[in-house]
Amino acid sequence: MAHSHDAERESGTQFLPKFGADGLLTGVVVDAASREVLMVAHLDREALDATLETGLAHFHSRSRGTLWCKGETSGNVLRVREILVDCDQDALIIHAEPAGPACHTGARSCFYRRLTDGRLERVAD
Amino acid sequence: MAHSHDAERESGTQFLPKFGADGLLTGVVVDAASREVLMVAHLDREALDATLETGLAHFHSRSRGTLWCKGETSGNVLRVREILVDCDQDALIIHAEPAGPACHTGARSCFYRRLTDGRLERVAD
Repeated sequence: MAHSHDAERESGTQFLPKFGADGLLTGVVVDAASREVLMVAHLDREALDATLETGLAHFHSRSRGTLWCKGETSGNVLRVREILVDCDQDALIIHAEPAGPACHTGARSCFYRRLTDGRLERVAD
Repeated sequence: MAHSHDAERESGTQFLPKFGADGLLTGVVVDAASREVLMVAHLDREALDATLETGLAHFHSRSRGTLWCKGETSGNVLRVREILVDCDQDALIIHAEPAGPACHTGARSCFYRRLTDGRLERVAD
């Protein structure tokens, strides 16, 4: 039974999100236009449902333990255009149209530094 | 002290990876040529060190609890070209050159299905 469930999860058409031991999926937000990875955050069932219902990316804050609508205070919401699901259904790619910088630091993407010889250097934004 | 450490982590040049409560960072593997997201997996300190030392992407298998060199059995290794680090240093983008399909199902990317109206449909590979 577990095996056929896994097979359905991998190759089937049923959406069977596999929340981890912490109750979370990994969400990778990709700019729908440029295809750049903007941020990584996590979704519990509540955040997933809120994302699907509103069309705005919602996450679960691991530090605060609460539901979080990305951009609810900054205005830099992420309008969801498409969601892709991976083989074992524990990670999502969220293709979104960002209303502004995705990173709270003001950078377009949270991934603004490159690891080179053990140090970080800023990449062009 | 915690605050200045956080500020250094966000804006500094020091690589201070923030492993989660489970001891893991999130790794997003992106095709260095096409910029397509290929897979998401997790790195503990051991996997991070092995990746940096060998130039081949290594992960920590959450199901088996062991170090895992991607492609060690299939031959479909991921040659690391660049690593980007996010603002709070708990996620990495690994730009890599894949030696073959990244997904164990044989798909180029693990993200081969789109969520549409609550169902999954295959996207072009």
